[in-house]
Amino acid sequence: MMAKKKQKKRTKVDAKTLAKKQREISVAEFFQKNRHLLGFDNKKKALLTTIKEAVDNSLDACEEAGILPEINVEIIDMNKKQGMKKEISEQQTTLVTEEIKEEDSGSKDRFRVIIEDNGPGIVKKQIPKIFAKLLYGSKFHTLKMSRGQQGIGISAAVLYGQLTTGRPTRIMSKTDAKSKANYYELKVDTRTNEPNIMAEKTVEWNKEHGIRIEIDLEATYQKAGQSVDNYLKQTAVVNPHVTLIYTSPDAEQRVFPRVIEDVPEETREIRPHPYGVEVGMLMEMLGTTEARTLQSFLMKDFSRVGAGTAKNICENAGLLPKVKPKKVTREMTEKLNKGIQKTRISSPPTDCIAPIGAEELEKGLKKEIKAEFYTSITRPPAVYRGNPFIVEAGIAFGGEQNSENSVRLLRFANRVPLLYQQNSCATAQSVMKTNWRSYGLSQSRNSLPIGPATIVIHIASVWVPFTSESKEAIAHYPEIIKEIKLALQECGRKLASYVNKKKRIVAEGKKRDYIETYIPHVAEALKGLLGLNEKDEKNIQGMLKSLLEKQRGKLEQIKVEASEFDESYALADTEEE
Amino acid sequence: MMAKKKQKKRTKVDAKTLAKKQREISVAEFFQKNRHLLGFDNKKKALLTTIKEAVDNSLDACEEAGILPEINVEIIDMNKKQGMKKEISEQQTTLVTEEIKEEDSGSKDRFRVIIEDNGPGIVKKQIPKIFAKLLYGSKFHTLKMSRGQQGIGISAAVLYGQLTTGRPTRIMSKTDAKSKANYYELKVDTRTNEPNIMAEKTVEWNKEHGIRIEIDLEATYQKAGQSVDNYLKQTAVVNPHVTLIYTSPDAEQRVFPRVIEDVPEETREIRPHPYGVEVGMLMEMLGTTEARTLQSFLMKDFSRVGAGTAKNICENAGLLPKVKPKKVTREMTEKLNKGIQKTRISSPPTDCIAPIGAEELEKGLKKEIKAEFYTSITRPPAVYRGNPFIVEAGIAFGGEQNSENSVRLLRFANRVPLLYQQNSCATAQSVMKTNWRSYGLSQSRNSLPIGPATIVIHIASVWVPFTSESKEAIAHYPEIIKEIKLALQECGRKLASYVNKKKRIVAEGKKRDYIETYIPHVAEALKGLLGLNEKDEKNIQGMLKSLLEKQRGKLEQIKVEASEFDESYALADTEEE
Repeated sequence: MMAKKKQKKRTKVDAKTLAKKQREISVAEFFQKNRHLLGFDNKKKALLTTIKEAVDNSLDACEEAGILPEINVEIIDMNKKQGMKKEISEQQTTLVTEEIKEEDSGSKDRFRVIIEDNGPGIVKKQIPKIFAKLLYGSKFHTLKMSRGQQGIGISAAVLYGQLTTGRPTRIMSKTDAKSKANYYELKVDTRTNEPNIMAEKTVEWNKEHGIRIEIDLEATYQKAGQSVDNYLKQTAVVNPHVTLIYTSPDAEQRVFPRVIEDVPEETREIRPHPYGVEVGMLMEMLGTTEARTLQSFLMKDFSRVGAGTAKNICENAGLLPKVKPKKVTREMTEKLNKGIQKTRISSPPTDCIAPIGAEELEKGLKKEIKAEFYTSITRPPAVYRGNPFIVEAGIAFGGEQNSENSVRLLRFANRVPLLYQQNSCATAQSVMKTNWRSYGLSQSRNSLPIGPATIVIHIASVWVPFTSESKEAIAHYPEIIKEIKLALQECGRKLASYVNKKKRIVAEGKKRDYIETYIPHVAEALKGLLGLNEKDEKNIQGMLKSLLEKQRGKLEQIKVEASEFDESYALADTEEE
Repeated sequence: MMAKKKQKKRTKVDAKTLAKKQREISVAEFFQKNRHLLGFDNKKKALLTTIKEAVDNSLDACEEAGILPEINVEIIDMNKKQGMKKEISEQQTTLVTEEIKEEDSGSKDRFRVIIEDNGPGIVKKQIPKIFAKLLYGSKFHTLKMSRGQQGIGISAAVLYGQLTTGRPTRIMSKTDAKSKANYYELKVDTRTNEPNIMAEKTVEWNKEHGIRIEIDLEATYQKAGQSVDNYLKQTAVVNPHVTLIYTSPDAEQRVFPRVIEDVPEETREIRPHPYGVEVGMLMEMLGTTEARTLQSFLMKDFSRVGAGTAKNICENAGLLPKVKPKKVTREMTEKLNKGIQKTRISSPPTDCIAPIGAEELEKGLKKEIKAEFYTSITRPPAVYRGNPFIVEAGIAFGGEQNSENSVRLLRFANRVPLLYQQNSCATAQSVMKTNWRSYGLSQSRNSLPIGPATIVIHIASVWVPFTSESKEAIAHYPEIIKEIKLALQECGRKLASYVNKKKRIVAEGKKRDYIETYIPHVAEALKGLLGLNEKDEKNIQGMLKSLLEKQRGKLEQIKVEASEFDESYALADTEEE
C-alpha cells in the first residue's frame, strides 16, 4: 500500500517538470566542479599543476619562435610576506607585482606563483582568451608535437586561483622591444566561460619580449616526491636547451643552466593520415573541404596521398575521382573508407615529431642516476589512430641503486615529466607486462620488476592521448603499449647480456677460487704418492696453475673483472635463481 | 654556426604569427579527439559505455517520475542482419527501426544498440539538445543523488556512433498516452556542439510513455569480464526494483525481473553547505543572489543556516548582517569565509542521498556469490568539499570462492556498477591500504588481499567525483578514502571474529584428535602399571574421554563444526602463519 501511495504522489513529476531543469552547462562550470580532472584535486598537486601548465606553455612558445628558453619560476609563501616583500622590491623593481595584502597573508596555505619567460609574448587581443577562457588555444587544431595541446591548462590554473583566493591572475606580455608591455588582471566568468577583464593597462617592462604570469592560490608546498622541485629537475634533464631559475618558498634559488645551445629541431605541422580517419570524420571533412573533386580532396587534405594514391583509393572505393566532395553521400563515404583501407599508403611523415634521441636520453640518465650500466633506444615511428608517435626508452642498472625495491620509473610525454597516476599509465602497464626475469631482474606477475634499476620512457607524438585532462598518464592504446614493450625488450636484451656476462664472470671467479684452493693439496698428495721433493711439489703446483689458466683464462684478470661488479648485484642474482 | 642560422631563420615566428592560430575549441571537438576520456577508447568498451549511459539515464528518469523501471536492451550484430531482420519485424511491428542497409552489414564490428524504457519521456523541444549537445542536462546544477550528473554521457555515445558509422542516432519519445510519439534522427555538429536534426516526425507508438534510442556504432562484443552482460547483471543486483530484458548479439534473451515493488526513496535536492564553499564561489554566489541582505543570503542560499547561525557567521566574520550582498568586496568575502569556518554549523542533510542499505546489499551479495559468511554495513553520512556522501560495504567469505587469488572487488557509485580502471579507483586504493592480515586474509604490502572473499563497496553522493568523464573510477579525496576504510574495517572485524572462531575450532579439533589417539595408549599403560583388568582399562578410557569432553566440549559437535568450514580455508590460514 505504502509503495502504491508513494508512486501515486510521485507521478506528478512528468516530462514537462523535468524539462524545466534541463539547460546548458558551461565548460568552465564543468571543470570548476570537476577540478580533479585538471590536476587540482589537492593543494599539493594544485601548486605543481599551476607551475607545470605555465612552464609547458613558455617552453612551447619559445621553441615555436626559435628562442632558447630562459624561465624564471618563483613561489612565495604569503604567510612569510614581510621578509619576502623587501626581496621582491629589490630584485624586480621594474615589474608590476601585486602587493600582498593583509587578509591574504593571514590565510594559511596561500601561495603566490610567478612564472616569467623570454618567449615571443602574446598579442594584446589574445591575452584575455588565452588565460581566461577554457578550450581556447593554438595547438588543438594542429597536428604537431607540443607540450600543450588542449587549450585548458593555464586557464584552469587561473580558475583555480580565483576560486580559492577570489583574486584575478595578473599577466604581463611584451611582443617587441619597441612597444610597452600589456598588463591584465583576469578572471574566468564561469557561467559563460568568457574572460572577465578586471584591469588593463600598458606598463614599462625592461625586457625585449616575454610573458610574466602571477597567480595567487591555495596550495601546500613539499620539496620531495611529486613536487615542483622534482618536476623542474626532470624538465631540465629532458630539455637540455632550457635554463630554469627556480626560487622556492624557502627563498632558496636554484639554477638549472642549459647545456645545449640548440633549440630542438623545428617540428612541422601535418595533415591527418587517411588510415586514421573514420567514416564520420571523413563525412565532416568532405562537407567542409575547399577541394573541388574527390581526388584533389584526398591529395590536399591528407598526408601521404599523391595523385596516384588518390586515384587508387577512388578505384578501390568504386568512386569517380571527379565527383564533387559535397555530393558524396554517407553510403559513398563508407565505400571511400573501405577503399582507403584497401589501398597501400605510406606511413605518416615524422618530421612533425622531435624525439629526444637515444644518446641525449642516456646522457640525461647519467646526469640523474649513478649506475654501472646504461642503455637506451629510440624506436622507429609508429601510428595510432592515424597519429604518428615515437617511443624512446632507457635503463640505468646497478651502482648506488637499491636492489630490494621495485625499479624506479621515469615517464615523459612530449618532453614533459609525468609525476602522478603512474599505475594508470600505459608506460607502467607496459613495464609490468614485460618479462623481466629473462633480462635478469626478479619480478612477480603483473608487477614492476625488483632490482637496482631505473627505467625511463618517453613518448613523443602530435597528439598524446592522456587518461585525463590533467595529462598525468597515457591512455592504453594497444599500438602504444606494443611500441613501449618493444623498446623495453630491446633495452632488456642489452641489460640481459650485461647481467649474464656478470653472472658468468662471478661464477667463473668462484669456480677458480675453489680449484685454486685445492691445487696445493693435490700437489702435496702427489708429493706423498710419488715421493717428490719440495721443489718438484712447487713445480707441480705451478704446472697445475698454468694448466688452469690456459683452460679458463688468467686468474688475476677474472678477479679484476669480477671485482668491477657492484656487490649489490649479487642479491638480485640470488633472487632470480 | 648551424644553431645560429637555424635560430635566425626561425625568429620570424613572432607573437603575431602565433596569434593567427589561436581559436576556440568546441567541447564536442575536444571530446571527439579525446574520446577515451568518455569511455570510448576501444571497441569493446564503446559498446558497454553506450549501453551504460542510456540505461543510467532511463533509470534516473523513471525514478524521478516515480515509475518502476522496465528497460529493454537489445544488441544486434549487423553482420548477422539477415536472420535478425525477420525477428525484429515480428517482435516490434509498431516501432520505427531503421532498416540495416547493405553497406552497414558489410562492415566488420558494426553493431546496433537499442534501449527502450517506460520512463516519462522527454518533451519535444529538449530531445535534440539532450541527445546531441555535450554538456547539456538537468542534473549538473542540482545537488541530488543521480546516476548521470554531467550532461555528457548519452550525447558522447551519439557522437561516437556518428563518428564510426556516419549515421545519426534515432530517438523516439512519448510523454503521454494521448499524444503521438516524437521521432528524431540526430547528429552532433562537432564544430559548434549544437544538435544537427537530420529528420523529425511524429509516429504512432503503442506505449503510454517512454524513450527508445537506436545507435549504430563500431564495437566488439564479449560475454565475459568487463562486458555488457556483467554490467546488466550487477545493475540488477543493486537495483532490485528494476526489470531488465536483455537480448544479446547471439539473439539470446535474458530477463532480470524486479524483486522489490518499491521505487527507491525519493531524494531531495539540497543547497550547498557553507563549509564546502570557497572564496571564489562565495563571491560568485554573492554576485548573483536574489537575497537583499547578507543574513538572508546565508539563510536562503545554503543548507543548515538558520537566522541564528547566519547572525553568528556575520559576527565571527566581523560583518554587518544587513549589508547588501552586491556590496560585499573580495576582502569582505575573505572575512566571511573565515567567519564560516569559525562558526559551528550542522552537517548537511542526507535526504538527498538514498543508500542501498546494508541489508539489501547483503541480499545482493547472496544472490551473486555462494559463500559461507556474509557481512555488510552502511556508514553514517560524511562530507567532502561540502558534498554529503554515504559509503556502504560488504564482504562475502569462503564457499566456492578461490582462496589462492586476490579477493574480488565489486564497485558501485550511485547504484551504477564500475567495471573499468579498478586500480585508479579510491575503492581499490582503500582496500589495498587496509591491513587485512589482522582480519585473517593474507596480503602483500599495497596489494589487494588474497583469499576466498568478495568485497563490495558502494558510494552514494550528490556529486560523485570521478577520475574521468567516463565515470569508471572514484577520485582520491581523503575524506572518501577515510570513510571507505572505516567501512572496510568494520566489516573486517566481523570477518576476523568469524575467521578466528573457525581457526579456533579447527585447531581444537586437531588437538582433540591428537589427545583421543593417545587415550587407549595411556589406558593400556595404566593397566600395565597398576595391574588392571580389561574392564577397568575400558572404564579408564571412558573416564579420560568424558574428562576431555567436559573440559573442551563435545567431540562430535566440534567435529561437525569443523567440517562445516570449507577446506579451501585451510590454505589461507596456513599462508597467514
